[in-house]
Amino acid sequence: MRIDIISAVPELLDSPLNHSIVKRARDKGLVEVVVHNLRDYSTDKHRHVDDYAFGFSAGMVLQIEPVDRVITLLRSQRDYDEVIYTSPDGERFNQRMANRYSMYENLIILCGHYKGIDHRIREHFITKEISIGDFVLTGGELPAAMMADAIVRLIPGAIGDETSALSDSFQDNLLAPPVYTRPADYKGWKVPDILLSGHQAKIEEWLHQQSLERTRLLRPDLLDEQE
Amino acid sequence: MRIDIISAVPELLDSPLNHSIVKRARDKGLVEVVVHNLRDYSTDKHRHVDDYAFGFSAGMVLQIEPVDRVITLLRSQRDYDEVIYTSPDGERFNQRMANRYSMYENLIILCGHYKGIDHRIREHFITKEISIGDFVLTGGELPAAMMADAIVRLIPGAIGDETSALSDSFQDNLLAPPVYTRPADYKGWKVPDILLSGHQAKIEEWLHQQSLERTRLLRPDLLDEQE
Repeated sequence: MRIDIISAVPELLDSPLNHSIVKRARDKGLVEVVVHNLRDYSTDKHRHVDDYAFGFSAGMVLQIEPVDRVITLLRSQRDYDEVIYTSPDGERFNQRMANRYSMYENLIILCGHYKGIDHRIREHFITKEISIGDFVLTGGELPAAMMADAIVRLIPGAIGDETSALSDSFQDNLLAPPVYTRPADYKGWKVPDILLSGHQAKIEEWLHQQSLERTRLLRPDLLDEQE
Repeated sequence: MRIDIISAVPELLDSPLNHSIVKRARDKGLVEVVVHNLRDYSTDKHRHVDDYAFGFSAGMVLQIEPVDRVITLLRSQRDYDEVIYTSPDGERFNQRMANRYSMYENLIILCGHYKGIDHRIREHFITKEISIGDFVLTGGELPAAMMADAIVRLIPGAIGDETSALSDSFQDNLLAPPVYTRPADYKGWKVPDILLSGHQAKIEEWLHQQSLERTRLLRPDLLDEQE
């Protein structure tokens, strides 16, 4: 799989893409992540990629031409499954999307920045607008890094132990059960006895019950989706 | 304002906290962001901070003791408004929370990692569990960086032009209108005439209408919240 991320502030992506799971998956050749500095595609000698918004008194907007140049170049080199733009008014990112995207061949993620991007980019180049949530960030770089993380960790071989990803929250529309590790007694705060009992079948049953109870209490909407 | 972020993989936070708005706000003295490496609080000569989960066959869990040590130390130094844990089953982060937190004095964000954290930490140290969305990440570092970005940009003086933040999506429960910049005609794709008309009052009205229409179309739930 290949993920191309286009950004006006690519420095923001350095550490998220070069540590932990994403780095390991890149090192293993499971995913290629290529960051494109939008400024390299500027038409301006000062490498500007933004300009004033028509009709607004404040805020800068990413220009259409540098984005056209980089996306057109990438598309001439390979087929992309989606050209994603991260925007607070897009479709909400979730685990189902992460599962689907982890099976894609090539993905472009364009990071917004400043006040937004020229709307014509959204109309003519973007195939999918995705939101991380109802809040505003300086740019789409952290959402892009987050999507890359959520997607890449689902590629078989990316995390050491596949069963670990399969028992995560949302994979079965249930929240994860509570987890505990040593010491079994810390300052009088004890791990539930059942987990120390050694009866694996009973433990599994308890974990499933806990998952169900936490989901009923905290996110009953997930159980409705399941039916 | 001060934000303490506790992480087992602090390298992930390097670039998000040292570029763009968060860096500028730190340089201006508007916010202090201190990253704590959980491994510095390990009780183990190999600096481990995780151990096997009781009752699970796979996945590692952050131990209670290193977390207790760092949070207890921080709390002995100052009062904290919240001790936040980033978890997919927490309360959904949104702009309203970002607004509220931007007025806080001191905030701790504990990043989960691996399979999760010992549940006793959640019961005894965490005052608020926050989710970024219904998906699973390798760790809470990117959500922590994202919350820091969303919060810090609301601190007066953090972004150059305050009106820019006030007209963002969600500040008034409306999505932002489409934005455009030069050139007015790009390969035949034109900016709406009204934006070039110079009639500022009419432009404002058009922008508001566009906001309303986009919200009705894409996120009618936001309009219900408003009433």
